[in-house]
Amino acid sequence: MKAVVYKGPYSVAVEDVPDPKIEAPTDAIIKVTTTNICGSDLHMYEGRTAVEEGKILGHENMGIVEEVGQAVTWFRPGDRVSVPFNVACGTCRNCTHGWTSFCLRTNPAEGVDGAAYGYAQMGPYDGGQAEYLQVPFADFNLLRLPEGDEHEQDFTTLSDIFPTGYHGADMAGVRPGDTVAVFGAGPVGLLAAHSARLRGAAEVFSVDREPDRLALAEQFDAVPVNIADGDPAEQIMAATRGRGADCGIEAVGYQAHDRDGNEHPEMVLDWLVASVRSTGGIGVVGVYVPQDPGAATEPAKEGRIGFNFGKLFQKGQHLGTGQCPVKRYSEQLRDLIIEGRATPSKIISHELPLTEAPGAYEKFDTRADGYTKVILHPAA
Amino acid sequence: MKAVVYKGPYSVAVEDVPDPKIEAPTDAIIKVTTTNICGSDLHMYEGRTAVEEGKILGHENMGIVEEVGQAVTWFRPGDRVSVPFNVACGTCRNCTHGWTSFCLRTNPAEGVDGAAYGYAQMGPYDGGQAEYLQVPFADFNLLRLPEGDEHEQDFTTLSDIFPTGYHGADMAGVRPGDTVAVFGAGPVGLLAAHSARLRGAAEVFSVDREPDRLALAEQFDAVPVNIADGDPAEQIMAATRGRGADCGIEAVGYQAHDRDGNEHPEMVLDWLVASVRSTGGIGVVGVYVPQDPGAATEPAKEGRIGFNFGKLFQKGQHLGTGQCPVKRYSEQLRDLIIEGRATPSKIISHELPLTEAPGAYEKFDTRADGYTKVILHPAA
Amino acid sequence: MKAVVYKGPYSVAVEDVPDPKIEAPTDAIIKVTTTNICGSDLHMYEGRTAVEEGKILGHENMGIVEEVGQAVTWFRPGDRVSVPFNVACGTCRNCTHGWTSFCLRTNPAEGVDGAAYGYAQMGPYDGGQAEYLQVPFADFNLLRLPEGDEHEQDFTTLSDIFPTGYHGADMAGVRPGDTVAVFGAGPVGLLAAHSARLRGAAEVFSVDREPDRLALAEQFDAVPVNIADGDPAEQIMAATRGRGADCGIEAVGYQAHDRDGNEHPEMVLDWLVASVRSTGGIGVVGVYVPQDPGAATEPAKEGRIGFNFGKLFQKGQHLGTGQCPVKRYSEQLRDLIIEGRATPSKIISHELPLTEAPGAYEKFDTRADGYTKVILHPAA
Amino acid sequence: MKAVVYKGPYSVAVEDVPDPKIEAPTDAIIKVTTTNICGSDLHMYEGRTAVEEGKILGHENMGIVEEVGQAVTWFRPGDRVSVPFNVACGTCRNCTHGWTSFCLRTNPAEGVDGAAYGYAQMGPYDGGQAEYLQVPFADFNLLRLPEGDEHEQDFTTLSDIFPTGYHGADMAGVRPGDTVAVFGAGPVGLLAAHSARLRGAAEVFSVDREPDRLALAEQFDAVPVNIADGDPAEQIMAATRGRGADCGIEAVGYQAHDRDGNEHPEMVLDWLVASVRSTGGIGVVGVYVPQDPGAATEPAKEGRIGFNFGKLFQKGQHLGTGQCPVKRYSEQLRDLIIEGRATPSKIISHELPLTEAPGAYEKFDTRADGYTKVILHPAA
Repeated sequence: MKAVVYKGPYSVAVEDVPDPKIEAPTDAIIKVTTTNICGSDLHMYEGRTAVEEGKILGHENMGIVEEVGQAVTWFRPGDRVSVPFNVACGTCRNCTHGWTSFCLRTNPAEGVDGAAYGYAQMGPYDGGQAEYLQVPFADFNLLRLPEGDEHEQDFTTLSDIFPTGYHGADMAGVRPGDTVAVFGAGPVGLLAAHSARLRGAAEVFSVDREPDRLALAEQFDAVPVNIADGDPAEQIMAATRGRGADCGIEAVGYQAHDRDGNEHPEMVLDWLVASVRSTGGIGVVGVYVPQDPGAATEPAKEGRIGFNFGKLFQKGQHLGTGQCPVKRYSEQLRDLIIEGRATPSKIISHELPLTEAPGAYEKFDTRADGYTKVILHPAA
Repeated sequence: MKAVVYKGPYSVAVEDVPDPKIEAPTDAIIKVTTTNICGSDLHMYEGRTAVEEGKILGHENMGIVEEVGQAVTWFRPGDRVSVPFNVACGTCRNCTHGWTSFCLRTNPAEGVDGAAYGYAQMGPYDGGQAEYLQVPFADFNLLRLPEGDEHEQDFTTLSDIFPTGYHGADMAGVRPGDTVAVFGAGPVGLLAAHSARLRGAAEVFSVDREPDRLALAEQFDAVPVNIADGDPAEQIMAATRGRGADCGIEAVGYQAHDRDGNEHPEMVLDWLVASVRSTGGIGVVGVYVPQDPGAATEPAKEGRIGFNFGKLFQKGQHLGTGQCPVKRYSEQLRDLIIEGRATPSKIISHELPLTEAPGAYEKFDTRADGYTKVILHPAA
Repeated sequence: MKAVVYKGPYSVAVEDVPDPKIEAPTDAIIKVTTTNICGSDLHMYEGRTAVEEGKILGHENMGIVEEVGQAVTWFRPGDRVSVPFNVACGTCRNCTHGWTSFCLRTNPAEGVDGAAYGYAQMGPYDGGQAEYLQVPFADFNLLRLPEGDEHEQDFTTLSDIFPTGYHGADMAGVRPGDTVAVFGAGPVGLLAAHSARLRGAAEVFSVDREPDRLALAEQFDAVPVNIADGDPAEQIMAATRGRGADCGIEAVGYQAHDRDGNEHPEMVLDWLVASVRSTGGIGVVGVYVPQDPGAATEPAKEGRIGFNFGKLFQKGQHLGTGQCPVKRYSEQLRDLIIEGRATPSKIISHELPLTEAPGAYEKFDTRADGYTKVILHPAA
Repeated sequence: MKAVVYKGPYSVAVEDVPDPKIEAPTDAIIKVTTTNICGSDLHMYEGRTAVEEGKILGHENMGIVEEVGQAVTWFRPGDRVSVPFNVACGTCRNCTHGWTSFCLRTNPAEGVDGAAYGYAQMGPYDGGQAEYLQVPFADFNLLRLPEGDEHEQDFTTLSDIFPTGYHGADMAGVRPGDTVAVFGAGPVGLLAAHSARLRGAAEVFSVDREPDRLALAEQFDAVPVNIADGDPAEQIMAATRGRGADCGIEAVGYQAHDRDGNEHPEMVLDWLVASVRSTGGIGVVGVYVPQDPGAATEPAKEGRIGFNFGKLFQKGQHLGTGQCPVKRYSEQLRDLIIEGRATPSKIISHELPLTEAPGAYEKFDTRADGYTKVILHPAA
């Protein structure tokens, strides 16, 4: 089959690789209909991770069940499904408590809980930027979708970015009537803003410096806050008459840059602490890593982020972090899409055949031509 | 009346000061029977805060209602009460949502929510290391105690340290059957360990380097972990067969020292991140401050604590911080004392007349003669 | 001043009564701008309660602060406010835990917790269908509104029916993506449906037999279910493909009638048990009473409602009940109105001067001329 | 193998039956070491259910894994395990949200969610009062125990009665410092009392009329309330100075009898409503059924329990009901046993070989010779 393969820094290729097979009786093979390029794929693309050459990339996958192992009883060939990016066993303590993003069994790496498809250090699982994908523990992991091809562009966000944005809102504790500050208006930040509104937020601020992203934020009913117009925390304090936002969401991660292009991994956390009111909650879904050889400072190379923790404590804020347990939210988000309440597909900028992946990676990485979110169709 | 007055770095004195009066109809005057010296009083004693000379110290107070304003209808002279250290209005948004430690009305300082008796930057309220104490919004703030003098040594912990320890356990999410790592075995850490057990923890580790504190920890049914025996996170990982603790509690604060006496404000947070399992919760009740001119490094002077946030994110941990809203817990803790389930008084090392406060501050500050917790009796 | 006074079964009159006065230093006097007739006022109007003749009715009140006692520091004359129907002390255990509807101090009746304005057995407090209203513990009870007269018709629902509907959704545990069945499309039921949507429900069913109410339900984005078309539980089961609703809300109460006009107090609870799925939650805000001399059966006279509790248990459902603690929700609902997310005023059918109250009671009681919700203006 | 088989009303026999086999790749076969007779087995024994003759009884099982299907990867032959009474798929919506007692896939009966071993209307699964037991979805359902035979008498309560008692405390919302009223001091009621204490309750009342059970209650640190001494709700009100218990637990069920032996299915619920304070929670784990042909009244035959719902509403109480999702609690309860915090085995009155099951059923049913809880050993 055809698949997008990592070839080294700034290089991916579409190559012929062997078809995946049923290896365990709990496996399923999915014929991929849509697979997306994620911002975190760019960490690997840029050579900033330890991903091995030859890895098939892609953790945002959906498609049609092609074949199932004999222990799979809940899904049949022909079923339309979304594949959460987490590879989860469904039986360990974390999985059974709803934390599929920290499965204790599927990642053989020492000291790392949680696995994913096509991802550095997240286990041996190939990705789904390919014609077919092998899915372990299929009865547990797969999410059933309505037959047909309706909502394909919305449903493709269910494998990662929509639940991830929602997870940010959930960890921040967004409740009806709340004011919410979302930092970052990339796909995850925009869907965090969308999620905050779905949870009943009265007002959502969406902070970024890219005008096209801020324009998208408005489509999701968020108030754009442009970093170019001044300190965003001060803008939010002014807009809330000095009270601050009730909740904050971090959707940028450790690679935050100032306007001169210098990396400041503590910058966004500082803004959050400053713009969220005392006792407020902060949900961090932007990625931070424990080792980052490419970081600008020695502390940052070992995951140390010197943000204003003293202020956080003085304000009595709380924060939640980490990769999203997709399964916790994806069923309810699917139902909101079906009922027309949620429309996450607005964030998609490009829809291409799989064979055009190499060019898409390049343009997405340089943010050329309005590449904000690319979805790929292996059958196209 | 007699009161303990701050005179400058390393100096307090017992002086004659005017008696407090009913100023607002919602005030009460308390005749103090017991008032404690808190570890955080030492921040002021050591001149590490902006507290003004002449301030009466003391925020851990209990006593008998002496007089009430005409709007006080719930308490009468003669009632025995505990006075939570938080001065709270009872009507602002934070108070009515249970966050009395972040009252929006009682602290006139710009940008700081929450007030306390006898404390730097926490409003104009005199402390209770004195014969009498003025209590604002008395109907809301006071906690009723049974008549008589039974449990005086236990009840005196209800104004601050017992609820504060419990708040750590609450923010960490301690549930029955959990394994809990408590860093710091001072009074708050010990009562955090006690609280974890009261909440049903199966196993509690108490981390410190002082043998007398570790011995006390055992009295609270905690397993002592001595920092002198090696990296405490590694000790906890070994004791949990590599799984890590389910929850962690920070009861040390920014003045953590290594064995050579050097301050390392990120040290304890790093240990917590390392010793708590993925998806686990961390409750931070050890104090961190947004400005600390006496800190060892430039970042620490402005509240920046460069702990391993990347690892925290990778493990999907969450944390809660800040001063304790005493009223949220003090009623239930009082009832546990009355029923004989809780015995926080075990942490008290010295019981002295108020007049001996200056010597007690000096010895407590140098940890001389086993001074771990001093309670003072103005009437003695 | 002018006030609506209860004169006996099916009789109210607008009479001249003495102006209310500041009696306690924590009191405020409100000049009423809008006050509503509530469905529960009809229980009294119909003579089905023990309310004494001469009582001023009206517990849904808003207006402008006219005068405050000397202990009131948070509100000033001229402030625009909503008055929650609960009279709450703000300092007892229930109030400080957010249960202002079960205040332990404001109702002198033996064995009944919670008080209200102008209501049978809910304490000695006069109602607000009058020019002025005395409000106890004003700093705690009043809700601040923006100056001016904007949103008056929306804000007037904040004293009772909007929070009460929301309380039903809260007790039922409505979460984003849920399917919700609301029984009763009177004002509270409609605002429960509105609340369910504000909390992110994917689909809301609104059950009633009155076509005008069902038409209103559609305006709140609910799917109407007409009892006249057959068993409503079966209709909901069919519409959910046999799964049942995730949550159910009871907004009818013990006076439920079948199509022949016979009272069946267990009918709606049975429908809820049948139409909510296993493990689902049910919020009961329709009123049930412990004594009802006018009930049709002996058990019902003493509050016994023989619904299918065996089925409830078999399905593992849970339910919450009781009067709404308005203060818990009214601030967030106010903010949703201000931001244009919530528009509860759609339920208002009539807007009249206070002097027309007697006719309004009569028509509302017989559901004549489309009287679904009447608001009164004392100054008109 | 030998197994206890239902032969008709008041008749069970130990017979030779075929050994169970691995049928699905997710199955395991357990060699039973301990299996208990449950109070609910008596419903079947007395002929009060539709259980078919020939059914192997027994849903409280533990033992050693004998054999596993090829899709079972988490357990190996020789592993010591507890088998939760719920047969759960681990992949349906209820299972993945923690409600294994309402599994949507394992019970083929129309309209009933949830399955169990050896139980009327709970699916085709044979029970474990036998030498071997077939366990579906073994990786998900089994609970791992430490090797050896330590704590066998404590661990045998993990399959049902200990988690069931704990579920009552959980649904009632028991928190540290609470006062809890438990109705029924049979095995489940006693372990509910034990659970309430493990969760930090300050005071627990245990209500029954059997002196031996009340004596056991005292061993679990509960205050006995003897129904023979007068109305138990009044006794609890007096003991709480008129305030009522914070939480209540129903551990009796629909077969409650008065002192003359007449069945009053609403009696215990009425006592709970009367003895729990306003806003308090009630957890119902005593069994209620939707059809009961043997009931004393027509309403009770169809599951209608005419308790004082009006009073429940007036007091704003909430209640949770239904069979326990064992897996939600059994891991933490196991850890509490291992650490010596929990000692549920105190409730065991008799320990017998499997072959003596018929006599044990008879004596347990008539409460002869102090038969309160019988555990059986197939290998003895």
